[in-house]
Amino acid sequence: MKKIGVALLGLGTVGGGTYRILMNNHDAIAKNDGVDVEIRHIIERDVSKAEALGADLSIVGTDIDKVVNDDKVSVVAEFFGGIEPAKTFLIKCLLAGKSIVTANKELFSKHWPELEEAAKKGKAGLYFEASCVGGVPIIRTLTQSMQGNNILSLMGIVNGTTNFILSKMADEGLEYADVLKEAQRLGYAEADPTADVEGFDSMYKLSILSSLAFRTKVPISKIYREGISKVSKEDIAYGKKFGYELKLLAIAKRNAEGKIEARVHPAFIPASHPLASVKGSFNAVHIVGDNVGDIMLYGRGAGDLPTGSAIVSDIVFAAKQAKPQYAPFKNTEKVSDSGFSSNFYCNYYLRMKVKDEEGVLAKIAGVFGKNHVSINTMIQESDGENAKIIFLIHKTGEKNVKKAMQDVALLPCVESVDAVIRVEE
Amino acid sequence: MKKIGVALLGLGTVGGGTYRILMNNHDAIAKNDGVDVEIRHIIERDVSKAEALGADLSIVGTDIDKVVNDDKVSVVAEFFGGIEPAKTFLIKCLLAGKSIVTANKELFSKHWPELEEAAKKGKAGLYFEASCVGGVPIIRTLTQSMQGNNILSLMGIVNGTTNFILSKMADEGLEYADVLKEAQRLGYAEADPTADVEGFDSMYKLSILSSLAFRTKVPISKIYREGISKVSKEDIAYGKKFGYELKLLAIAKRNAEGKIEARVHPAFIPASHPLASVKGSFNAVHIVGDNVGDIMLYGRGAGDLPTGSAIVSDIVFAAKQAKPQYAPFKNTEKVSDSGFSSNFYCNYYLRMKVKDEEGVLAKIAGVFGKNHVSINTMIQESDGENAKIIFLIHKTGEKNVKKAMQDVALLPCVESVDAVIRVEE
Repeated sequence: MKKIGVALLGLGTVGGGTYRILMNNHDAIAKNDGVDVEIRHIIERDVSKAEALGADLSIVGTDIDKVVNDDKVSVVAEFFGGIEPAKTFLIKCLLAGKSIVTANKELFSKHWPELEEAAKKGKAGLYFEASCVGGVPIIRTLTQSMQGNNILSLMGIVNGTTNFILSKMADEGLEYADVLKEAQRLGYAEADPTADVEGFDSMYKLSILSSLAFRTKVPISKIYREGISKVSKEDIAYGKKFGYELKLLAIAKRNAEGKIEARVHPAFIPASHPLASVKGSFNAVHIVGDNVGDIMLYGRGAGDLPTGSAIVSDIVFAAKQAKPQYAPFKNTEKVSDSGFSSNFYCNYYLRMKVKDEEGVLAKIAGVFGKNHVSINTMIQESDGENAKIIFLIHKTGEKNVKKAMQDVALLPCVESVDAVIRVEE
Repeated sequence: MKKIGVALLGLGTVGGGTYRILMNNHDAIAKNDGVDVEIRHIIERDVSKAEALGADLSIVGTDIDKVVNDDKVSVVAEFFGGIEPAKTFLIKCLLAGKSIVTANKELFSKHWPELEEAAKKGKAGLYFEASCVGGVPIIRTLTQSMQGNNILSLMGIVNGTTNFILSKMADEGLEYADVLKEAQRLGYAEADPTADVEGFDSMYKLSILSSLAFRTKVPISKIYREGISKVSKEDIAYGKKFGYELKLLAIAKRNAEGKIEARVHPAFIPASHPLASVKGSFNAVHIVGDNVGDIMLYGRGAGDLPTGSAIVSDIVFAAKQAKPQYAPFKNTEKVSDSGFSSNFYCNYYLRMKVKDEEGVLAKIAGVFGKNHVSINTMIQESDGENAKIIFLIHKTGEKNVKKAMQDVALLPCVESVDAVIRVEE
């Protein structure tokens, strides 16, 4: 039996869930995996949280050096979230030879190289399965099951809050602001929802996942990001008419020239796509490999026990590794611009308000043509005074579409361009 | 760089796919995973297959002892399928200390204990990710990512042939026999389709998956099996009216008394269930863990490259293991009956033909009541002479339903009981 001393940094939602799983499953893990996990320290200012869990209060404190200096601790699980003090604490632990396990996607996406450097110095491991898509083993899949593949694309719904909001808008025909309020009331969205609804959380996760998928560092600075706060129920409803569902997608692809494009934004996908049926707070990641073809992993992306499940899996996994493994690529923020593309190619959905007069369509089509933007489908609806036109545009470069939209907005017959939404076929 | 000598036993579909992936990805695997894979032997009677792949013919032969006696071979990948000669060859290799990698679900489900015994004697590893759901890492997920969970249920679409047939019957309103013919023409079904359509292939896979999920050996003798050859388009159409899709499911659950029920049969599931949208030749496995909640893994369950992708992943994985790991349970066919339940509890869909006369429903309801079978929903349709009745039955034990159906069939007013289909809610 291998004895593993563990320290838990923080007893918030996921920290508490992890504590409970480790206590309830201690004997099963010992029997099945031959690992005897002992919680030796809990770093938590709020002792009442430890009391509520029935933890041994003698191991609860605020002094990280107790963890660093305890030779019997080999794995440190971090639940503070955010950059500091997590980063300073974890680097101390790594340099002291203690492997870390974490769900901290912000820290990992921003400071992975520094953490890895400290880990290498301390001969310690870095485990972060819990950082993306909760208990779903997406990190393990990318690192340990795709060796026979060049991954062509990775596309995921990796944020539960935004998927809950978009699902509810679609199912009940509600506007964003109203659903957000309800999500906040139910605890699915934070009082300040920015990190979720503006796509930051998805961007952090995409940075980690796409780096592993393409075996090259994809820094957050190379990821285009757009949130869901401007999405309207009207566009969701029109999308349905075309057979589309609207999702906040985290997308990374290697394009024809070998460059990586990485982006987080609302996108329409066909209702028949496996990601389209991922509803509510569920998450999923869809991967295309040149040999394996399409695969998808689906599950709860957050929550005390789902994320705790990934943390516990990583603790056992860390205990069983002969030696730690590091990123299979040069792990640095300093990447060359030439490896990335910002002019990505998509189909587009466009909605605009125009004057209800003759020749409008010809004028718009003229501007489109000049910008190499070609119309696939069009719907025109009029209320007698103004008309609404919805276009589906054939696949084209983002730059062409942006330029076309600028030019179209200058036409006197165009009142406003109200929606530009990318379509992933 | 770790050098790994590999032997390929057989160059059929998956063997050929594996050969191609190993050749095309040799340098990437060396760079990313630090493993230099060398194919040292190919056991294949039909030299033309090796020629077609451009293989070095000097390593192609039929003498397994060349593999067994080559000290530089550490991993043997088997593609013969079936029991012999695969079993004899693999045991020889294992005893000689060579790890095996295989997609052979029949061999593994029937002779895993013997293979494991030989592996332990030879200090060799057993890797069989490719045996279930092609390139989807379901085995790795069960063994390496669920340590913090008691798995409550596992439910999968694990056979592409039958899912192709059922999807086509549902989408195009065709009968089983017609779709089977087309599937055979397209190469999706074998000339003798028994292993697929009667659920044997699914049963083999369920034995492997449920053993790993519940950490106790689930022999095929404990798995109830029923195929799709009696499914009619009529029932698929009625199911849709109730919001159900019909799938051939492989199901294993631990029931309230801690007993395992394992079964393969056609079943209705709600259209909103994640498995319901798994169409065509795709496979998926849905798992519920007490902590992780619902997760699902989806992908292609067969094919040269998808399955080859899993084989290659296992070869690299085998190369990187410090020491082999074996089943986390007593791996024996001799299991106690008391650990398994054969009276499983489901909802049911029933269709019968009755005489179109008064009092029929009362008589049937009377028989149901005596057998503790309770009606949830009913549809009655008449053509003037005969009537059809479809019942949805509340959750009840299989034994009650079977007894009720026997008794109902004896009623003079009942012409025939035409369908009994389980419903998984």
